[in-house]
Amino acid sequence: MRESILTVIVTWLGACGLFAAKPNFVIIFCDDLGYGDLSCFGHPTIHTPHLDRMAMEGQKWTNFYAAASVCTPSRAGLMTGRLPIRNGMCSNKRRVLFPDSAKGLPTSEITLAKALKQGGYATAAVGKWHLGHMPEYLPTAHGFDSYYGIPYSNDMDRLAGTGPKNGRSALMHPRSEYWNVPLMRDTAILERSPKQEYLTRHYTTEAVTFIKEQATNASPFFLYLAHSMPHVPIFASGAFQGSSHAGRYGDVIEEIDWSVGEIVRTLREADLADNTVVVFTSDNGPWLPFKTHGGSAGHLRDGKGSTWEGGMREPTVVWGPGYVQPGIVHELGSTLDLFPTFLDLAGIELPGDRVYDGGSLAPVIAGRGPSPRNDMFFYHGEDLYAVRVGEYKLHFVTKTEYVGQKPLRHETPLLYHLGNDPSEKFDIAAEHPQVVAALVKHAETHQASFDPPESQLMARLPRND
Amino acid sequence: MRESILTVIVTWLGACGLFAAKPNFVIIFCDDLGYGDLSCFGHPTIHTPHLDRMAMEGQKWTNFYAAASVCTPSRAGLMTGRLPIRNGMCSNKRRVLFPDSAKGLPTSEITLAKALKQGGYATAAVGKWHLGHMPEYLPTAHGFDSYYGIPYSNDMDRLAGTGPKNGRSALMHPRSEYWNVPLMRDTAILERSPKQEYLTRHYTTEAVTFIKEQATNASPFFLYLAHSMPHVPIFASGAFQGSSHAGRYGDVIEEIDWSVGEIVRTLREADLADNTVVVFTSDNGPWLPFKTHGGSAGHLRDGKGSTWEGGMREPTVVWGPGYVQPGIVHELGSTLDLFPTFLDLAGIELPGDRVYDGGSLAPVIAGRGPSPRNDMFFYHGEDLYAVRVGEYKLHFVTKTEYVGQKPLRHETPLLYHLGNDPSEKFDIAAEHPQVVAALVKHAETHQASFDPPESQLMARLPRND
Repeated sequence: MRESILTVIVTWLGACGLFAAKPNFVIIFCDDLGYGDLSCFGHPTIHTPHLDRMAMEGQKWTNFYAAASVCTPSRAGLMTGRLPIRNGMCSNKRRVLFPDSAKGLPTSEITLAKALKQGGYATAAVGKWHLGHMPEYLPTAHGFDSYYGIPYSNDMDRLAGTGPKNGRSALMHPRSEYWNVPLMRDTAILERSPKQEYLTRHYTTEAVTFIKEQATNASPFFLYLAHSMPHVPIFASGAFQGSSHAGRYGDVIEEIDWSVGEIVRTLREADLADNTVVVFTSDNGPWLPFKTHGGSAGHLRDGKGSTWEGGMREPTVVWGPGYVQPGIVHELGSTLDLFPTFLDLAGIELPGDRVYDGGSLAPVIAGRGPSPRNDMFFYHGEDLYAVRVGEYKLHFVTKTEYVGQKPLRHETPLLYHLGNDPSEKFDIAAEHPQVVAALVKHAETHQASFDPPESQLMARLPRND
Repeated sequence: MRESILTVIVTWLGACGLFAAKPNFVIIFCDDLGYGDLSCFGHPTIHTPHLDRMAMEGQKWTNFYAAASVCTPSRAGLMTGRLPIRNGMCSNKRRVLFPDSAKGLPTSEITLAKALKQGGYATAAVGKWHLGHMPEYLPTAHGFDSYYGIPYSNDMDRLAGTGPKNGRSALMHPRSEYWNVPLMRDTAILERSPKQEYLTRHYTTEAVTFIKEQATNASPFFLYLAHSMPHVPIFASGAFQGSSHAGRYGDVIEEIDWSVGEIVRTLREADLADNTVVVFTSDNGPWLPFKTHGGSAGHLRDGKGSTWEGGMREPTVVWGPGYVQPGIVHELGSTLDLFPTFLDLAGIELPGDRVYDGGSLAPVIAGRGPSPRNDMFFYHGEDLYAVRVGEYKLHFVTKTEYVGQKPLRHETPLLYHLGNDPSEKFDIAAEHPQVVAALVKHAETHQASFDPPESQLMARLPRND
């Protein structure tokens, strides 16, 4: 009886965040997953029972943003808690890093892994990195004890002389051998051109193995599992091929859902579920020009690369029975907030020598208070295209990526109310001049507050020819 | 102990549909609700906790169709289990009934209420009817013991000399007094121009009262609760005004969600939950031209009036702890199937003197088998615009209602795969000529199988001036 009371008290303390033990953290990060691609976010044909259950037992966030609308800047934002414009991880010319890129996330940046490691955490990165593939930029140089995965996108390093000459055709009828991407362990290349059918499965095995190892360790852990899928070329492994109602793209998402289920099952079986917080989200919206090989932003406008909502708002699930108050969360959040959130939950002080672009979501996760976030800046490369404050979003420049539109600068910015118009259909700038003025000022104040450094994305390696 | 075993057996028999007691039925039917308007169907800002819970405890149907894309024919289909083209309840000129319409659902038709009443059911209709407001067509002439509600749409009977001259402006800035619609009990008019703010609440009170009365009756019951909302003009009552994150439209949906919660609560408190099947759906998709006063079809294309998916696929929840195997259902279903489904569950034989356009979904509801439905016909008025067989949908004619497009007949019909392309974006007719041919033949066979009778929707009452 005394033991059960103790259990109740400890659980309650844990739920209140007052319990001294540091929680474990798992981030499951997809690549190009659309806001509308999960069943619990309204997809009519893709089955995601594991994520649906997590959303039910935990929190489904409907206003959660990636830090940018393409890979590299988005991941830089998540890893540093800072807008990519602050550390050169964006560019108007090369929007992401490529296999010929010479640089990566500056070593002067403190990653989430580094901060947690300094706080006593075991850390592992599995999957896509895309913050620099030269040794000094790899995960193991940025606070992770170990790394297994592909250091950039799975459609990079196209091998000349393989498959269709047309790159797009190769992507829509893909075979792994068309690409020379390296699969790495720590700083070594394990193989080139790995069978991409097995990426999700291999990543899952690595992640599960890491969690099992941690079960007997005294220290808490941070696992960053960044899937390569559903970025084109999309691949699913044997059992999932042709298994969904939604074609190849559906197969791929359903395999990711299976993988999520394996992670949660492992946490439960290792008796770690009550002391772990899992965040599932993605780096940016669906790559719409790839049609049935791209996902869906559901209610939201446009997709990957865009500063319309479909480019940056992500289907996000936060799960952890010991920490998370179940429910649907309409508060604003961002991957930019994960850095301060995890440090807060772990009782680690935020570094005081730099500006952070987020705050701790711990009160929202515990169901104890509102989000510290009331705004979001939407950068397109180095340019600020839009700003959200509360339910209002103001677009200075729009560029509908789906149709390959050129940037369109608006003399009078476009204003949308994302509450009653989540699809950004009805410009209400004319009716709300004061809101427009306030958001213009908010953006100006933000931009005047710092000088962006030189971009890291332009430097190239010497050519080998 | 013996009692509890008995309870288990009875419950099991009930779950198998072998238990002799006839289940009660409740249909909650919305007006112009979009596929994407509920939280459990992906809406980012509208809260629908009661429906979310029902979807979790019961079945969320993602491929469930209204019988037509506008009010009158859709309701005729639900009530008779027959396509409106079979009984004159559609027209190319007047797509629905109006206050000056002289006719309605032919008395030769057997409604679901009539069939259940003959099988011993108590029957009640609450809300919008729209199958004829002359005495011989009202619910009480069509098998319902009682009726309370508005006999046609809440935007009809515009009162001259009230509010903005422009009808659209009146609808977007509405007051109840702009319309002369009658609120009826049985065949009598209770009042004209009722305060529409209270419609959802009054309908709910009527429905709750009816259920409570049935609790002590030996006979089973059928309640048809057809909300007037969210058809424009949209209204919510006091507590819901301004309460949602999604503006006035969100307030209205959240009041409907509250109402659904009241129905379920009443069923539970009256100990009827285990012997009742509740179906929640709507008559057609969102009325998109009304912008923030119209809903969202989410992933689906176009809205009300259209034979694109957004016009006829509806967010559907089937709930009933004693009968419904929980889960997400991707099988095809339609309001056309409710007639044979309910008769099947009640052990009543289907009338043998006429053709029905659906089958019993009882096996799907019980989780015991597939849906009998493998096709769907999409009529626009009296014309067949599209046909679905399995995952394929073929459009002979398209007309995007949202932009007021004229009908566009396609020399080569457009083919879509609704599994991997639920948004009907990518025409694949050229790649699948055999599928096109098979669907063309399916449509031709269907159309050759009957001669449509004269439309009921054209006859007008003599004018009173």
